[in-house]
Amino acid sequence: MGSNAVVLLSGGLDSYTAAAVAKRDGFNLFALSIHYGQRHSQELDASRVVATALGVQRRLELPLDLTRIGGSALTSDRIDVPKDQPIDPGVIPSTYVPARNTIFLSVAMGWAEVLGASDIFIGVNALDYSGYPDCRPEFIRAFEQLARLATKAGVEGRPLTIHTPLIALSKAGIIRLGLSLGLDYGLTHSCYDPLPDGGPCGHCDSCRLRAAGFEEAGATDPLIRPSR
Amino acid sequence: MGSNAVVLLSGGLDSYTAAAVAKRDGFNLFALSIHYGQRHSQELDASRVVATALGVQRRLELPLDLTRIGGSALTSDRIDVPKDQPIDPGVIPSTYVPARNTIFLSVAMGWAEVLGASDIFIGVNALDYSGYPDCRPEFIRAFEQLARLATKAGVEGRPLTIHTPLIALSKAGIIRLGLSLGLDYGLTHSCYDPLPDGGPCGHCDSCRLRAAGFEEAGATDPLIRPSR
Repeated sequence: MGSNAVVLLSGGLDSYTAAAVAKRDGFNLFALSIHYGQRHSQELDASRVVATALGVQRRLELPLDLTRIGGSALTSDRIDVPKDQPIDPGVIPSTYVPARNTIFLSVAMGWAEVLGASDIFIGVNALDYSGYPDCRPEFIRAFEQLARLATKAGVEGRPLTIHTPLIALSKAGIIRLGLSLGLDYGLTHSCYDPLPDGGPCGHCDSCRLRAAGFEEAGATDPLIRPSR
Repeated sequence: MGSNAVVLLSGGLDSYTAAAVAKRDGFNLFALSIHYGQRHSQELDASRVVATALGVQRRLELPLDLTRIGGSALTSDRIDVPKDQPIDPGVIPSTYVPARNTIFLSVAMGWAEVLGASDIFIGVNALDYSGYPDCRPEFIRAFEQLARLATKAGVEGRPLTIHTPLIALSKAGIIRLGLSLGLDYGLTHSCYDPLPDGGPCGHCDSCRLRAAGFEEAGATDPLIRPSR
């Protein structure tokens, strides 16, 4: 019988892979999906399907409407999702959602404490998204330090470990890892701005990084229908 | 014209006083009230009234249902609010809500970034609630460190300052400060488990700390009707 772990599960390729690593390592999975007001519901639909595929112990979906705060292309209608723009790793893109991972990890920390869990898995990746400050190793380490001081568990000497199994992988490396674990990426959703039929737009940063990752991994994305 | 500050405003005596200090210091107030599923709505009703009394620029009320996580007398029906129990500063009471202040500060940090604000005010107090780990100065400093790494603003060299004007004050000291600023504590709500008519129970830790504070400050609590 393994230990409990909270896994942040968005329904995207990265979080699915990170959660699968937690499962491989023997953890009982408690999946947390925060509905923060993404422009589309496909992501959360995917998080339900993926949670089932992973056989999680429990899934908690919590709404927290960050569109009331805005400030990101993902949470504000007034900011367009960039399409076919060069991806500059030195620039934080407009899809950055202020404080998102801090909020996610905070809620996960609260749930972990109630579950008696000392482990959280998050699918952050510093390589292909170096633009997001809250995907970097130094942010994760600072959150672990905060957790020692923030919670009853921390004060009582049960520190929290935040696992980031993807942090140093390329997108191709993540896909190779997931395929080696038998994952079906056809269940996931990555696009920032899906088509009316729910399919990926193919032009946002997320679609393009995904496509390049599958290509580099020498694999076929099951989400992409072959064009004639 | 002052700078913008996000003030966490629960509707209690402490957050009202902390926000009034922000106002005295010349900040434009943006009040954030998170409805986390407290057992009663009096607290949020009070936060509306208090926000109006303070003349805030804007008030944002965000629901985030922490009863789905539970683990506290304030978020779970299965845990009783302690009444007339000795308050032991060495023990974390059952009214502790796992990760609450980390979650609140995370959301405040996101809003501050969108507003271009570098200041957050929170009414934490280490003296009369030493049992809550996330009310201590070391927690606040760790959150400031995290903020430097977590946000675009932090990475770009605009660090966040978390103001805790009450952290070293006794409850009596807080009340004296608020009265010197002309606050009407009759607008606030402190009780963890109000009576059916909305009045304070008089027996929970919060009611008892408030009563002792008013007594020590030599003041009368406008919430308490004189008994005949």
